[in-house]
Amino acid sequence: MTKRIAYCVSDHTGVTVEAVTKSVLAQFPALECSLIALPFIDSPEKAREAAARIAATPGALAFSTLTDPALRAALREGGVLPFDVFDLVVPAVEAALGQPATPSGGHTHGMTGDYESRMDAVNFSLALDDGLQPQRLDQADLILIGVSRVGKTPTALYLALQYGLRVANYPLTPDDLERGSLPDVLLTHLPRLRALTLSGERLAAIRQVRYPDSRYASLAQCREELVAAARLFQQHAVPVLDATRMSVEEIAARLRSRP
Amino acid sequence: MTKRIAYCVSDHTGVTVEAVTKSVLAQFPALECSLIALPFIDSPEKAREAAARIAATPGALAFSTLTDPALRAALREGGVLPFDVFDLVVPAVEAALGQPATPSGGHTHGMTGDYESRMDAVNFSLALDDGLQPQRLDQADLILIGVSRVGKTPTALYLALQYGLRVANYPLTPDDLERGSLPDVLLTHLPRLRALTLSGERLAAIRQVRYPDSRYASLAQCREELVAAARLFQQHAVPVLDATRMSVEEIAARLRSRP
Repeated sequence: MTKRIAYCVSDHTGVTVEAVTKSVLAQFPALECSLIALPFIDSPEKAREAAARIAATPGALAFSTLTDPALRAALREGGVLPFDVFDLVVPAVEAALGQPATPSGGHTHGMTGDYESRMDAVNFSLALDDGLQPQRLDQADLILIGVSRVGKTPTALYLALQYGLRVANYPLTPDDLERGSLPDVLLTHLPRLRALTLSGERLAAIRQVRYPDSRYASLAQCREELVAAARLFQQHAVPVLDATRMSVEEIAARLRSRP
Repeated sequence: MTKRIAYCVSDHTGVTVEAVTKSVLAQFPALECSLIALPFIDSPEKAREAAARIAATPGALAFSTLTDPALRAALREGGVLPFDVFDLVVPAVEAALGQPATPSGGHTHGMTGDYESRMDAVNFSLALDDGLQPQRLDQADLILIGVSRVGKTPTALYLALQYGLRVANYPLTPDDLERGSLPDVLLTHLPRLRALTLSGERLAAIRQVRYPDSRYASLAQCREELVAAARLFQQHAVPVLDATRMSVEEIAARLRSRP
């Protein structure tokens, strides 16, 4: 099987075209492909350079999200006919709306207000990481709870960066678990609590990396903590997400879409 | 102008369909649209519910990334004909490759190895945030430097979460700037340093939110620090990115694509 190169050409960050390319190529499992991102192709000169590079790669595939006709023309003249996401989707939308598109560059990430609310959310999530500043929990959109190393911090940061949500996270310590009730500071925020859990095996594997051969990382200890935590979640009717087989995107999307 | 609703239907997280929808709608500036995400539509029953909701919304647009024919059929039978990204792009790729696609669900985010390397990168970036643990800087893929509040931490976390890069960040303090040289601990890592900067106005506005009316947040102080920092960057030939008008996606994509 020959390995192919798939180029992702964008006049901006390339986030959209990379996402589409990965999803489309996942539907061709027999094809072994590696991706090369060519972002910020925003002048005819850069488009000509990109075209030359793609044309010089045997069997290359090219995906693109270019809106400027001059950039598309430069690729075409360089002998590259990419699968262009906008080319394929926009005409269908034009037909449905009965109005022509205005090539705008498709820059959807440049809004300052959006940027600021997301940076504010990141700062919030860092400030309220791992149980810090519990007096500010009332300002949180969501509060993630769970035992140590269950993925609370990365999930909180992803929700902040991707969706601008202010997400605190609060660890359940062995002491909390032994006491048999959620920490008092959480009880006034029950509707915004979301619990994360993992299989015992997965949690033990994650803890092993940090503290090999410790009691903390033993399968028995992990299982004991997870069972005790599950009991607390049930007792207070906190929605629980088992993240054992999930990517951080999936965990975040599920937490966000939950009522 | 009527405000329309654009539904983003996905059998998974919806990251891809939301990115495409936003980019496509940006090309219809006269159209006022709000997005509603319908992720995890992964059974015919959920697809029927989604179809009913969409069909009941006057003038609704629907974008989708569904690979399972049964789910597409359920939408269609509910009277919804979405702009389906895969429907529009995959046939072009099939024709070019001369091989049929295998509807796989398009789940590109589920790979455990990928998840682990990204979580490892997040933990690394948090551990080496704000100059912490400088003895581990040799393990970093990139080291972001710049004055306080220039956006180092969110950028480092985004690069870790999105691309799995291990990114440290190191603040340049007024003391460093006065000394007129980069901190010694950075000098052995020059090839991996990347500098962030902002306009004085923007930096002052950001600092004002945290410490209103302080000297730290004054325009004069911000400008002075930025000028002194720029001198250091030039002196050591550190690549500089002016992030004043950039989203975190753009900053990250530019840092990543820089040689």
